Amino acid sequence: MRIDGLTDHACLIVSGPDQPGVVAAVAALVARHEGNIVSLDQHSTDPVGGDFFQRVVFHRTGLADAFPQLEEDLAATLGPFGMTWTLRDQSVPKRMAILASTEDHCLLDLLWRHRRGSLPVDVPMVISNHTRTAEDVASFGVPFVHVPAQPGPDKSAAEAEILRHLDGRVDVVVLARYMQILSGDFLQKVGVPVINIHHSFLPAFIGANPYQKAKDRGVKLIGATAHYVTEDLDEGPIIEQDVVRVTHADSTPELRRRGADVERAVLSRAVLWHAQDRVIRHGNHTIVF
Amino acid sequence: MRIDGLTDHACLIVSGPDQPGVVAAVAALVARHEGNIVSLDQHSTDPVGGDFFQRVVFHRTGLADAFPQLEEDLAATLGPFGMTWTLRDQSVPKRMAILASTEDHCLLDLLWRHRRGSLPVDVPMVISNHTRTAEDVASFGVPFVHVPAQPGPDKSAAEAEILRHLDGRVDVVVLARYMQILSGDFLQKVGVPVINIHHSFLPAFIGANPYQKAKDRGVKLIGATAHYVTEDLDEGPIIEQDVVRVTHADSTPELRRRGADVERAVLSRAVLWHAQDRVIRHGNHTIVF
Amino acid sequence: MRIDGLTDHACLIVSGPDQPGVVAAVAALVARHEGNIVSLDQHSTDPVGGDFFQRVVFHRTGLADAFPQLEEDLAATLGPFGMTWTLRDQSVPKRMAILASTEDHCLLDLLWRHRRGSLPVDVPMVISNHTRTAEDVASFGVPFVHVPAQPGPDKSAAEAEILRHLDGRVDVVVLARYMQILSGDFLQKVGVPVINIHHSFLPAFIGANPYQKAKDRGVKLIGATAHYVTEDLDEGPIIEQDVVRVTHADSTPELRRRGADVERAVLSRAVLWHAQDRVIRHGNHTIVF
Amino acid sequence: MRIDGLTDHACLIVSGPDQPGVVAAVAALVARHEGNIVSLDQHSTDPVGGDFFQRVVFHRTGLADAFPQLEEDLAATLGPFGMTWTLRDQSVPKRMAILASTEDHCLLDLLWRHRRGSLPVDVPMVISNHTRTAEDVASFGVPFVHVPAQPGPDKSAAEAEILRHLDGRVDVVVLARYMQILSGDFLQKVGVPVINIHHSFLPAFIGANPYQKAKDRGVKLIGATAHYVTEDLDEGPIIEQDVVRVTHADSTPELRRRGADVERAVLSRAVLWHAQDRVIRHGNHTIVF
Repeated sequence: MRIDGLTDHACLIVSGPDQPGVVAAVAALVARHEGNIVSLDQHSTDPVGGDFFQRVVFHRTGLADAFPQLEEDLAATLGPFGMTWTLRDQSVPKRMAILASTEDHCLLDLLWRHRRGSLPVDVPMVISNHTRTAEDVASFGVPFVHVPAQPGPDKSAAEAEILRHLDGRVDVVVLARYMQILSGDFLQKVGVPVINIHHSFLPAFIGANPYQKAKDRGVKLIGATAHYVTEDLDEGPIIEQDVVRVTHADSTPELRRRGADVERAVLSRAVLWHAQDRVIRHGNHTIVF
Repeated sequence: MRIDGLTDHACLIVSGPDQPGVVAAVAALVARHEGNIVSLDQHSTDPVGGDFFQRVVFHRTGLADAFPQLEEDLAATLGPFGMTWTLRDQSVPKRMAILASTEDHCLLDLLWRHRRGSLPVDVPMVISNHTRTAEDVASFGVPFVHVPAQPGPDKSAAEAEILRHLDGRVDVVVLARYMQILSGDFLQKVGVPVINIHHSFLPAFIGANPYQKAKDRGVKLIGATAHYVTEDLDEGPIIEQDVVRVTHADSTPELRRRGADVERAVLSRAVLWHAQDRVIRHGNHTIVF
Repeated sequence: MRIDGLTDHACLIVSGPDQPGVVAAVAALVARHEGNIVSLDQHSTDPVGGDFFQRVVFHRTGLADAFPQLEEDLAATLGPFGMTWTLRDQSVPKRMAILASTEDHCLLDLLWRHRRGSLPVDVPMVISNHTRTAEDVASFGVPFVHVPAQPGPDKSAAEAEILRHLDGRVDVVVLARYMQILSGDFLQKVGVPVINIHHSFLPAFIGANPYQKAKDRGVKLIGATAHYVTEDLDEGPIIEQDVVRVTHADSTPELRRRGADVERAVLSRAVLWHAQDRVIRHGNHTIVF
Repeated sequence: MRIDGLTDHACLIVSGPDQPGVVAAVAALVARHEGNIVSLDQHSTDPVGGDFFQRVVFHRTGLADAFPQLEEDLAATLGPFGMTWTLRDQSVPKRMAILASTEDHCLLDLLWRHRRGSLPVDVPMVISNHTRTAEDVASFGVPFVHVPAQPGPDKSAAEAEILRHLDGRVDVVVLARYMQILSGDFLQKVGVPVINIHHSFLPAFIGANPYQKAKDRGVKLIGATAHYVTEDLDEGPIIEQDVVRVTHADSTPELRRRGADVERAVLSRAVLWHAQDRVIRHGNHTIVF
């Protein structure tokens, strides 16, 4: 599958120590290759001694043929600046696996957006520790894999099975209310970014039952947070957050119902931006262009 | 001073164990006294065995004369139900002292709203541990009292001086970015509700420097929280909260600048609602009618 | 089907000329019938000579048996006040037909919320002038009816066919991006409220192609509006509205994509509130309790 | 006055027909002049045959001395591309006159932000057709000029007097709820951008009394719009908009009170962005970087 409207579009991400001349060097290289810059964003954490980030999307007729030479020239141009970079053909969709459990709101929302053409990804599989959503997933024409949750604290067998399914087939994993904590070992072996949706406005209400905690604390807004998963639970780099107003009259189930709408909205934005190479990790932060 | 448009308006707050007949008894009493109900709100934490809260505003010609009889009848009517209640003449403004420090945004916003007629309170004094805002406060015709912060951990002398100024002269104290932690002893002696504005979306970023903490965590929204002050720092009942969107490009000073707008908006709403008897404390929660 | 958790819950809506004693009379009647008031809201357009609206939900064990006597007593009590009223058993779901066209976002969101148990309605049928969503609708177990759009300005035959399908089977009709303008004759004959979602922040951008109009005007927020349908296109009483921020960089298709999220959120809230008897029409306004 | 933190910062705005090589040419020029790019934004209305807009902020030690050569080189570089451009020393504040009437909320908010150091402008004068805010304006150390509104439809004498005060002394005029319609003749003669705040979410409720119109229509959100003034009333390019939620219970005066908060927030953002050269006019649209 190729993404409509993005034929011959390349996305270049550059990062490294901020210094004069990088923007000019990149722009000159693109111009030399007869690319037309479609969008360009940059950020520096500090103009003096800070870190520099740039995202350039350019159109280049015959991109596939030009790719090797572009990469060679980028290495030659950016190497001396000490910059790292990635170049991606935007017409090639990222392959996104979704891990889910019994809750269907985030899962179905992603599948529906994908079918609608609003998420530029392929979805090679949905993996769930329950079978409850199997039929819905099948109706979208997406393969459904059942890997039951492993009882007890040692999850290594279930994780190994999931890794076998993912191996070489995905570019990103999305936890759509997966509810199982993935081990550091899994995160290391999976080798691709893992995006999670947490059902609170982090860093408030880390861990289990955030809606109950929100009710207990008496907050007037509840929220959701999409973030990259790291070994530290709910502590990874935040991609997107949002909130909705609640009152004393809202019960905990009502918070859950209204929070579900925020969860799926926040996760879908985070996934879209990741799919479009708009999100750059920087330590425990993200730059979202 | 009397509040325009609220002559002969009474506000009745009733709370206690939920049970059938309370609403009817209150409404019948108001009708018997020839009161016309202007607004009525109620909330029950649980229809079975929960706590019940009601706020009734009614108009009664010649309210001042009828007040003693109303109170007597309320006691007779609500006593058997085991309910507690307060009746207030809404045309009498609450007396609100403001405690401030060097930051002027919350302080001046409250004074400006008061002058504009948007806050139904009297402001008998502003107390500050700095003199920086003295001239501005004077321009609003409000007495300014300078009580310097006491060096060292023992704040009892400064607190005692503040208490002498407040004694018998105020119905509510508002901390408009006061920046000093008030002791449990002070809170007990002051004898009126104390409202604080905290410059984060509680319970995230409790304590000092929340904007720096927000920057360090990389959140995508920053917020502010108005709450009643209790002995537990930033743990009191929340009255109002709000947030504003930020990005990776916003520096900590920029977070502070944008957060200041949220702080003054949130505090002004909390103070308005408190002044209108819309906020009822219930344990560590608030009901906001 | 009965709605979980609402057994023996009655919802009483009262409206008429504001006057003292109505609240007391209603509350006394409920108490006399051993009802326990679960929630109570009221509104007066003007305390003197205005219109009064009240919504009372109460729990009454054995509601079904008590219903006739309740209705008789309400007539006797409220008649002298000149008030109109309706009493509904909240455990009985309203029957909601959905009319749709090719766009699936509002339609599927309503069906999904219904399946999830978040919308207390029955959905006896979906009627569409296209077959594109037939399979999806079937997957929710909801009957799908295809009534092709009638070419030319005279839509009476198609409308008559729709009326035959609806006749006696529905309590409310929801236009989920139906895209056909219903005639005044249809609205009169259908005899139940019709709710529409318009894809703009009304009264801005009435009529066709609001996203293109929004792009042309260069607005910085786009929105959606759920309203009751009247003969005047996009002029009926507004139930709910919301907006989302856009920028110069968003193309018209991108406005459409982002607006779709607002449309389905706004429509689902309006439908929920209507299903819960929270919305009262008052001329061209709504009171939403 | 110079603006802290912006010494040696230049802002370059480039616009014209989109074509390959412009970004590279600009970046190379900045690099050749030993400038370090601090931020860079660009937008193209269409990659093929569209209009291109770029904003580059760069730091260049000894900017003032380098300015003439920079301008000469920009003309030589960008002329062949057919681009127009402006170069501004960001440490030089724009001179902003404020025109006001009796309402003080937008006026005082701008003056307070300016004093606080949050608005990088000079305010050489406030002109008002009433004297009501004279004392407040004086307390900010800003000259107050009283130009009474001219009775009757012909405003030419009053406008001529305002033009005499502004002549050569301002770079932008802000109408902070000025309430007088300026003639096309005035707009032509003033020769600088004029920013207005309209108290509705345009294009809804153009003209007078928008809050009453909002109440009459029964909208569930009210808003405010900051825009550049053109001869067509309330039809100029929109810079910023925002909204706030209201209910059936809010009276028209309450809409006015709550709307005032939105007005001052929206106007202050529009003025800030204009002061920072972030807003580019493009026909009846704005690009806001």
